[in-house]
Amino acid sequence: MKPTYHCIPCHVNHIYRVVSGLTLDEHTKLRLMQELTRIIASNFSTPPDCAHELYTAISQLTGIDDPFTKVKKNSNALMMSLLPQLRAECGHNPLKQVLKLSLAANMIDYGIGDSNCGEDFAVTLKTIIHDICIPEEFYHKFILAMEKAESILYIADNAGEIVADMLLVDCLPKEKIVFAVRGYPVINDATLQDAQDIGLTQKVKVITTGDRTPGINLTRCSKEFLLNLSQADMIIVKGQGNFETMIDVPLDGIVKTGVKLFFLFKVKCLPVAEFTYKKVGDNAFIIREV
Amino acid sequence: MKPTYHCIPCHVNHIYRVVSGLTLDEHTKLRLMQELTRIIASNFSTPPDCAHELYTAISQLTGIDDPFTKVKKNSNALMMSLLPQLRAECGHNPLKQVLKLSLAANMIDYGIGDSNCGEDFAVTLKTIIHDICIPEEFYHKFILAMEKAESILYIADNAGEIVADMLLVDCLPKEKIVFAVRGYPVINDATLQDAQDIGLTQKVKVITTGDRTPGINLTRCSKEFLLNLSQADMIIVKGQGNFETMIDVPLDGIVKTGVKLFFLFKVKCLPVAEFTYKKVGDNAFIIREV
Repeated sequence: MKPTYHCIPCHVNHIYRVVSGLTLDEHTKLRLMQELTRIIASNFSTPPDCAHELYTAISQLTGIDDPFTKVKKNSNALMMSLLPQLRAECGHNPLKQVLKLSLAANMIDYGIGDSNCGEDFAVTLKTIIHDICIPEEFYHKFILAMEKAESILYIADNAGEIVADMLLVDCLPKEKIVFAVRGYPVINDATLQDAQDIGLTQKVKVITTGDRTPGINLTRCSKEFLLNLSQADMIIVKGQGNFETMIDVPLDGIVKTGVKLFFLFKVKCLPVAEFTYKKVGDNAFIIREV
Repeated sequence: MKPTYHCIPCHVNHIYRVVSGLTLDEHTKLRLMQELTRIIASNFSTPPDCAHELYTAISQLTGIDDPFTKVKKNSNALMMSLLPQLRAECGHNPLKQVLKLSLAANMIDYGIGDSNCGEDFAVTLKTIIHDICIPEEFYHKFILAMEKAESILYIADNAGEIVADMLLVDCLPKEKIVFAVRGYPVINDATLQDAQDIGLTQKVKVITTGDRTPGINLTRCSKEFLLNLSQADMIIVKGQGNFETMIDVPLDGIVKTGVKLFFLFKVKCLPVAEFTYKKVGDNAFIIREV
């Protein structure tokens, strides 16, 4: 997806929140905001590519490689504390319920606006799971692909959210799954550290994209990621950033012919809402067949 | 006042609102937003200097010289329709009441956040006038300066607001007043057209700053404005933009020694709140003696 003019204030307000939270003097904050704002004014292929440049610059200019370390630890800890409750919630028809839960947990996001990972998160999440409706066609094709696949690539999104992803992993043929997280910290996206912290690495093979983009930029991904992408018979794609970077990128010769990408995410901004003919806040279950 | 890192998202969100309202295709809006965002990332002496560059660029790049024509006409018309009511409101101790009204009307602002110039504006304004308290020292010195002055320079701020300024002008020695508006359209700041529209030009001598800054940049002002500035025995300065550009600029040799600048404005953002030891939303009656 190409960036739109709506993306510019969104990115600026995001880095403003990040810069405000950094322990830097006022003058350094101004210089940093100016530099990051100049980056935002550049041309990008996709909005997550802009975030890649921003977080690379923050790391290089301030030495702060991960402004969201604490936020991610808190999200993981909160979701882990809810795990028994969430598991009980999904008792009936676990796969279907956990698919809903996994999408609902995508609301944990510090990229756009405030996260919703507060104290009342358990209640919110519970309500949302019950309100979510998976389109019949999506669910049917998901089951078929899952049963047929020899290799499933699961591309994750945010910390905290990956605890719900872990519940979904439990409902899938675990031995066939390769679970991909970000190669470097970017916003509150899950990294290898997060996967280790919640014990996901003990359940499935976890790899990284090898990249700092909060999405997939094929030109920057590691060989290992690209190899797994090319071998996958089914690709599960969580979150808006992954959607923005994978929905319309050419994939011929990069993934197997006929492979389906199953996108699950909350629609978080106007450009994506318009692109998907949905509303901000809607749940998106979208299939792309290559 | 120097810009701070808080000014960057504020400027970006402002131009986003402006660009959103322009009749341009999406691609042109993106290119325009990128160009304006690059400007915002530059170094400026004051925040209004940034707005000068932005509105000059909007005019040059789009041919739209005044995106706020309609907004300003509406603000003027609304305030003119309230004039009898406002005049009645100020019947008791007109000067004191009208000083309050003139400050309260500074809430009409499209530069920061939304304006408050809606249908319920009369009620809001009435409440605010009653809540405003003019510091005794300010009022006392204002009266003294007014009685002593041979020449009063009144530097205006926004359209609509100038109707309240006109009521204040009625309480001052009109023949001694030179009333200054912006030389070119910038945000919803009052221009000569607005002064003519409300009939202010029939009451006092109206000049312009000769400049597009929503404040005073001495290097860009017309000779006529600088001459009136140098001759004034009392300077009344409305609005935050004029405050930001005139509170700490060197004025020795530019205005008469001992002259007082009487600033009246609503505090509209964190940097100005911190600078003035006030809160956002507070009323500021501040004197600068040169």
